[in-house]
Amino acid sequence: MKLADKILAGNVLAAARLMTEIENGVPEAVAELETIYPHTGKAYIVGVTGPPGVGKSTLVDVLIGILRRENMTVGVLATDPTSPFTGGAILGDRVRMQKHSLDKDVFIRSLANRGWGGGLSKATMSMIHIMDAMSKDIILVETMGTGQAETDITRVADTSIVILSPGMGDEIQMMKAGILEAADILVINKADREGADNLQRQLEIMLEMKTYLPNEWQPSIVLTEAIYDKGTEELVAAILRHREFLISSGGLDKRRKQRAKLELAEATESSLKDYIYQQISKDDYFEKLVDDLVQRKTNPHSAASKIINQFKPVIGQGGKQSKSR
Amino acid sequence: MKLADKILAGNVLAAARLMTEIENGVPEAVAELETIYPHTGKAYIVGVTGPPGVGKSTLVDVLIGILRRENMTVGVLATDPTSPFTGGAILGDRVRMQKHSLDKDVFIRSLANRGWGGGLSKATMSMIHIMDAMSKDIILVETMGTGQAETDITRVADTSIVILSPGMGDEIQMMKAGILEAADILVINKADREGADNLQRQLEIMLEMKTYLPNEWQPSIVLTEAIYDKGTEELVAAILRHREFLISSGGLDKRRKQRAKLELAEATESSLKDYIYQQISKDDYFEKLVDDLVQRKTNPHSAASKIINQFKPVIGQGGKQSKSR
Repeated sequence: MKLADKILAGNVLAAARLMTEIENGVPEAVAELETIYPHTGKAYIVGVTGPPGVGKSTLVDVLIGILRRENMTVGVLATDPTSPFTGGAILGDRVRMQKHSLDKDVFIRSLANRGWGGGLSKATMSMIHIMDAMSKDIILVETMGTGQAETDITRVADTSIVILSPGMGDEIQMMKAGILEAADILVINKADREGADNLQRQLEIMLEMKTYLPNEWQPSIVLTEAIYDKGTEELVAAILRHREFLISSGGLDKRRKQRAKLELAEATESSLKDYIYQQISKDDYFEKLVDDLVQRKTNPHSAASKIINQFKPVIGQGGKQSKSR
Repeated sequence: MKLADKILAGNVLAAARLMTEIENGVPEAVAELETIYPHTGKAYIVGVTGPPGVGKSTLVDVLIGILRRENMTVGVLATDPTSPFTGGAILGDRVRMQKHSLDKDVFIRSLANRGWGGGLSKATMSMIHIMDAMSKDIILVETMGTGQAETDITRVADTSIVILSPGMGDEIQMMKAGILEAADILVINKADREGADNLQRQLEIMLEMKTYLPNEWQPSIVLTEAIYDKGTEELVAAILRHREFLISSGGLDKRRKQRAKLELAEATESSLKDYIYQQISKDDYFEKLVDDLVQRKTNPHSAASKIINQFKPVIGQGGKQSKSR
């Protein structure tokens, strides 16, 4: 039996093995993913992001507990290298996290940072697909959140949670740039600390400065103290409220279409890259351009434009073909 | 006057500004690079790589001094985040490095790690082109050397130096995987430390296991104690010997052609990526594929293959066109 079939039959070990194959770039994994893909699209994806030190992992840990009490099955994907899930933990943290390891309805996986190369990373999406095929109701994806659109899980999550904590100072400036834009829920963790009020005011002002359309979600702010399990029920309530909103407003379909687009673009980019690297070594046209480059008769940018311009009409033709079919 | 013209006229400030524009992804920088490109290809590029803690920066620092005494102008590009050049230094290091800052024939620049996204990074190559256009004779590129082909400067350097030091233990295992393969010169720095003999033996055995063709360069091993300036003259001699070998064997042209290929492939990939992302939002053919994806009628990999298959004939045509012209 193939790994994919085993996974669809509920075999957890097979899932873990396929994930390892994906991390290691084993070519056969692609076919397994193709088998799995039709069985995905059911899980609800929650992105949990924020700078290091705000308590993301602790919050994820508490969320797992609450979701389990609501009888939901949970997948966790940790891509933040400073996360205890990923290995960058002090011992106490890791012991605490292990309490879920006995629960068969919780599947936790960390993804080494290398998975995040260019783009949102096929590896991340593949891991999510596998957890989805394992019938996890909710998939929590913990990321560091660099504010760079390319690597932000906020682009593919159904609900994006951005976690801040008081006393981060300049970090907020960094965050403002990109991540906050994408937040559906803003969490102020460590809300008992000095500066929490001030941070809340700042975020409120920021939200007030935006204008929201009638059918547009206005981000909510939730105060939590994850280590004391305070405010976390409210956070889960906010997630479910956002999910309801997305379903009733049609926003969920829109996000999922966006996600499919992104995945198609990245898969195309990746295949095209492989193809170009192969071709460039044997195609006369490429060879000629390379020689021109070596002799400085052209430059990489202009030479690349020449190649691209040959592709453009074909993409247009593709459009026509698909209509006539 | 454009930045490029100023740089070609010897304006150091203009070079620094263009480098900043490149780091920040300012679109106008592309045109400046196009202007500069015909004036590049003269500098000799030396990659200096190895795991953190082996003394790369100290060695680079000493090399600068020796090369300057030989009346060569020097450019330094540091991409290792733990390098004192890049900012990750203890105070003493940084003060020491500053001695070259008064020498107008030494240009030192660090590149934030983000420049290293997918591929070898356009940013790195662009920085090298600018230093080349500034008429630097030797450009030293200091990198951490992850062993991943994609990010290794060893692929584009004329001479690649891999630095090790005794007592690194498992790091060598990591290194063996990729970087050593690419080394033209192996340096054992901190050669006065215990374990240097043993390390030397290991490297010698490794080299003996390979068979070299008559016109193939056999990597040399150089022992240095960079902080005492010991063995460093020998290292410079080894670099110059390798350069002589490359020139007389035709290897230099081969490497430079390889570098042009890589740059063309990366420039094409990058432009194509931009184009696909634009196109995917407005082209009917893409839209249809995205809908199929959302409905799980296909999967990202198969859908991407369909798109790529449309490109393939065009690339072939390109080859024919270039011959008939």
